[in-house]
Amino acid sequence: MTDQLIIFDTTLRDGEQSPGASMTRDEKLRIARQLERMKVNVIEAGFAAASNGDFESVRAIAEVVKDSTICSLARANENDIRRSGEAIKPAASGRIHTFIATSPIHMEKKLRMSPDQVLEQAVKAISWAREYTDDIEFSAEDAGRSEIDYLCRIFEAVIKAGATTINVPDTVGYNVPEQYADTIRTLIERVPNSDKVVWSVHCHNDLGLAVANSLAAVRAGARQVECTINGLGERAGNASLEEVVMAVRTRRDVYACDTRIDTTQIVPVSKLVSGITGFPVQPNKAIVGANAFSHESGIHQDGVLKHRETYEIMRAEDVGWGANKLVLGKHSGRNAFRSRLIELGAAIESEEHLNHAFARFKELADKKHEIFDEDLQALISDEAVTPELEHYRLVASRFHSETGETPAASLTLNVGEKEIKAEAEGSGPVDAAFKAIETVAKSGTELLLYSVNAITTGTDAQGEVTVRLSRDGKVVNGQGADTDIIVASAKAYLNALNKLHGKFEKLNPQI
Amino acid sequence: MTDQLIIFDTTLRDGEQSPGASMTRDEKLRIARQLERMKVNVIEAGFAAASNGDFESVRAIAEVVKDSTICSLARANENDIRRSGEAIKPAASGRIHTFIATSPIHMEKKLRMSPDQVLEQAVKAISWAREYTDDIEFSAEDAGRSEIDYLCRIFEAVIKAGATTINVPDTVGYNVPEQYADTIRTLIERVPNSDKVVWSVHCHNDLGLAVANSLAAVRAGARQVECTINGLGERAGNASLEEVVMAVRTRRDVYACDTRIDTTQIVPVSKLVSGITGFPVQPNKAIVGANAFSHESGIHQDGVLKHRETYEIMRAEDVGWGANKLVLGKHSGRNAFRSRLIELGAAIESEEHLNHAFARFKELADKKHEIFDEDLQALISDEAVTPELEHYRLVASRFHSETGETPAASLTLNVGEKEIKAEAEGSGPVDAAFKAIETVAKSGTELLLYSVNAITTGTDAQGEVTVRLSRDGKVVNGQGADTDIIVASAKAYLNALNKLHGKFEKLNPQI
Repeated sequence: MTDQLIIFDTTLRDGEQSPGASMTRDEKLRIARQLERMKVNVIEAGFAAASNGDFESVRAIAEVVKDSTICSLARANENDIRRSGEAIKPAASGRIHTFIATSPIHMEKKLRMSPDQVLEQAVKAISWAREYTDDIEFSAEDAGRSEIDYLCRIFEAVIKAGATTINVPDTVGYNVPEQYADTIRTLIERVPNSDKVVWSVHCHNDLGLAVANSLAAVRAGARQVECTINGLGERAGNASLEEVVMAVRTRRDVYACDTRIDTTQIVPVSKLVSGITGFPVQPNKAIVGANAFSHESGIHQDGVLKHRETYEIMRAEDVGWGANKLVLGKHSGRNAFRSRLIELGAAIESEEHLNHAFARFKELADKKHEIFDEDLQALISDEAVTPELEHYRLVASRFHSETGETPAASLTLNVGEKEIKAEAEGSGPVDAAFKAIETVAKSGTELLLYSVNAITTGTDAQGEVTVRLSRDGKVVNGQGADTDIIVASAKAYLNALNKLHGKFEKLNPQI
Repeated sequence: MTDQLIIFDTTLRDGEQSPGASMTRDEKLRIARQLERMKVNVIEAGFAAASNGDFESVRAIAEVVKDSTICSLARANENDIRRSGEAIKPAASGRIHTFIATSPIHMEKKLRMSPDQVLEQAVKAISWAREYTDDIEFSAEDAGRSEIDYLCRIFEAVIKAGATTINVPDTVGYNVPEQYADTIRTLIERVPNSDKVVWSVHCHNDLGLAVANSLAAVRAGARQVECTINGLGERAGNASLEEVVMAVRTRRDVYACDTRIDTTQIVPVSKLVSGITGFPVQPNKAIVGANAFSHESGIHQDGVLKHRETYEIMRAEDVGWGANKLVLGKHSGRNAFRSRLIELGAAIESEEHLNHAFARFKELADKKHEIFDEDLQALISDEAVTPELEHYRLVASRFHSETGETPAASLTLNVGEKEIKAEAEGSGPVDAAFKAIETVAKSGTELLLYSVNAITTGTDAQGEVTVRLSRDGKVVNGQGADTDIIVASAKAYLNALNKLHGKFEKLNPQI
């Protein structure tokens, strides 16, 4: 019998903390539905006490997702825990994940508490959490630099108080596999009642070792891995869900456990997260990179083609490659459109909503011959913008560029309730469009990043543009898709401005 | 005393084998110069017998680079080794790297040779190589799935014959750290005279473990790591140079060795390779990703800002972040321009060449206020195109798009010796431009990928467009940069067509 390895996805919490990766409630819901379909065991849906928006997102996910446990992060204080408890209440299965720092440097400099005070606070946190659920996870922040004796002491105390999962994060990504495995092994050996809880790991990738550290810990007895889609996360990110899952599956001989993940959902979820956050996946990324399963054509010859197994240890189909088939076209009906949207995890809130989306689909089908899942994803993203959050909207546009002349853009914008015309010249048509918008918005932002990806193959593909703006240290990403790259760019810029317009402040815990 | 770890960069050989990453001779030269500046010990410059182009590239690099050893790969046959020997002749320090498969499945199915025949062939290969150099590396292809007794036997024989470096590749990326380290440890213990050679590792990243496997091998005694910039390479790529180097440096306590790498060159080289190949680096990539050293702004507050070391194990400056300073502007002179180009590794072949580039620079400075290193890199890339390879060239263009109308492009192209006008409509102006080009070229290609990145920040930045075309299983990347994104797109498409026009066939060995 092989053990089950619990996959705890924190794309929506730690992943969202990447600068520029913040997501709306609807975007989080779409990702959560896909994670559920992929059979992730635990979805960390957010940090409920961070802001009202975070609370709402966790609660909305808890209402909808039924096959995965929904978890909210909470600092070890009463308010955080009660907010988390309220947020997960609708869940079929809900977890509170509380944490406190245990390394000397953090206890002294950040918390300004003694080790005994930290331990007492942790135990109190567990007892507050028990008022809401029996599924309680405790994390020792910066465990990688904590003293092992103290870790044993605090873990013993929280297990006694009722914690059911004990997480040992490598907060700063400083550990190496052999050491980290030793730490886990020692803890499991020394902590009383260690067999009554699930041991969990949470690794950061600063030295490129997050996956290797997680896997070494699994060999040492850990049975939950915290990870994210595409390895998203602060700085160099977290352990990649797809790499952990496929390593365990491919090398079951070594890891002696398996996950319940439906691996054929890996590539679709990776594309969804990349599309929503605007973070590209590099072609040479393991499992989900565009080249991960392709050899340079030169060697696809005779002798080698005959024995593909000679070079392949996994099959592309097993992780969901090649599932991007043509789904809809100009003549597809409303029902086909509706059922495909549901399969893609979109929420259809009303008939009116569906009608509007379907009209947009027909418009697109006039311009573009084949409509792929990726096009529908882009369309949903566009549709998902809540109108009240849409302060700026593009009504119409005209662009002209010609060798020897200065490129020019002329836009009609909806700003609040008013329609305003804006014109500008620029170094190129995209620059002209952005300058035209700024004649109206005067946002005082800096453009940090501009990128475009064709969301399917073929020259008539839609371009999906990501624009990253910053103002006063706050960073937002805007997205826009259209078959006209300049229109997509203007939409993306306005989307980013809308995000800046809706003010929000939130906390980002470090574990 | 800490041992030296030899860094063997194979970006130009194994990295170039990524589908779509093929580079011209001049591009390879620019990367090689930067690798030399970074103090890489060994540069694998190519596979000389693969094609005349590869031979020329290896030879050109051997002529120019003096502070790094220049290596050519060769199968274990006389022709390959003699071609490699000729190619590295001009090098101050030259190495021949020969390989043959040693796993039962490869020996039987691919080579159709007995183990004894393979051993004999390997020994012969070493003796041919010795006619050219004393620095000889031997690789056992698919060592990860070879029998340990046979590996001991063939390594003993090639060491006796004169091999000075023994490489143990994990060709299919199937190994995990503990196992791989055991293999290396066993080999070093059992092979007679193992202390007379350098043990080397070459890991692939299919399960996300290439860096971890390499580092585990270093702990077991390996003293050369084969790696690539950004982890480029076939499928999921090779071990990332930057991650290996920084892990060894940051955790010297664990690895007990260090490299001679100038780490401040890491980010500039990463950007150069990404720009030339068109392979983006994802923001959450360790060390070289845009977010690798940035925290979400929320936590940049009081208590935390005061103690940055709480969350940082490396300094961004140490790997070359923040070195992207404003270098040139509209009023910069010819000398400043020339010396910056030289610092960027560009070859200035003649005064005429410099004059032409300088005129292009002035043109750009008229459109764009601040000229960064990245702009100069793009300019050099454009300049580096050898005219005789440029079958198609953009002379002039006109684009128009307007809400409610069909976007249209009108181009003037130089085709061979003739000037041809081309017009088309499309789903967007980029599609219209590509369709206009195709009315002339009729290439029969499929567009696999289209992406744009602004190469610096700010709205007047140049867009660098990558277009990936395929025809009959052959894949090429084209690049184009311009402040006008449609012009950049047309240039990139033409660049890709020019690469397809110049026919070349080459072999891609698998190690």
